[in-house]
Amino acid sequence: MIKDNTVFVGNKPVMNYVLAVVTQFNNGADEVSIKARGKAISRAVDTAEIALNRFLEDVAKKEIVTSTEIIDTESGQTNVSSIEILLAQR
Amino acid sequence: MIKDNTVFVGNKPVMNYVLAVVTQFNNGADEVSIKARGKAISRAVDTAEIALNRFLEDVAKKEIVTSTEIIDTESGQTNVSSIEILLAQR
Repeated sequence: MIKDNTVFVGNKPVMNYVLAVVTQFNNGADEVSIKARGKAISRAVDTAEIALNRFLEDVAKKEIVTSTEIIDTESGQTNVSSIEILLAQR
Repeated sequence: MIKDNTVFVGNKPVMNYVLAVVTQFNNGADEVSIKARGKAISRAVDTAEIALNRFLEDVAKKEIVTSTEIIDTESGQTNVSSIEILLAQR
């Protein structure tokens, strides 16, 4: 089975990311990690909730981790929050 | 000590909520729960990260839970994602 499947959530419509997560499980993944930074964090939570509630029967949230990442920008370094939601087959 | 302290994160500047969390710990709380729904979820994560990284020495994330809540609106019921980040004294 494929390991370390990650879906990075950005600014596209949430169903794009839901489809990506569901597809990875349908392709045999045991675990899928949903990651996002900054304002996309809300969409990452939406992605996990919609995927679990509407599409994935035997999958559950395994772990949710938040952290702070240091990003280099044109005006120097800045901190941004990030989230990782790990979904796994039950 | 005071139990069940909750900070609801909305659309105000993030430092308002950081201050609310830090104040509760300074007033003797053992645990503070940070809650948010929808787009405010990102700000809730920011609140926890800033409070822990800059202000609270002996506090850690204890649990992060996401869920889906059903909300009544003028145009019927709708689903909204929510998050609860529980911070606790180490």
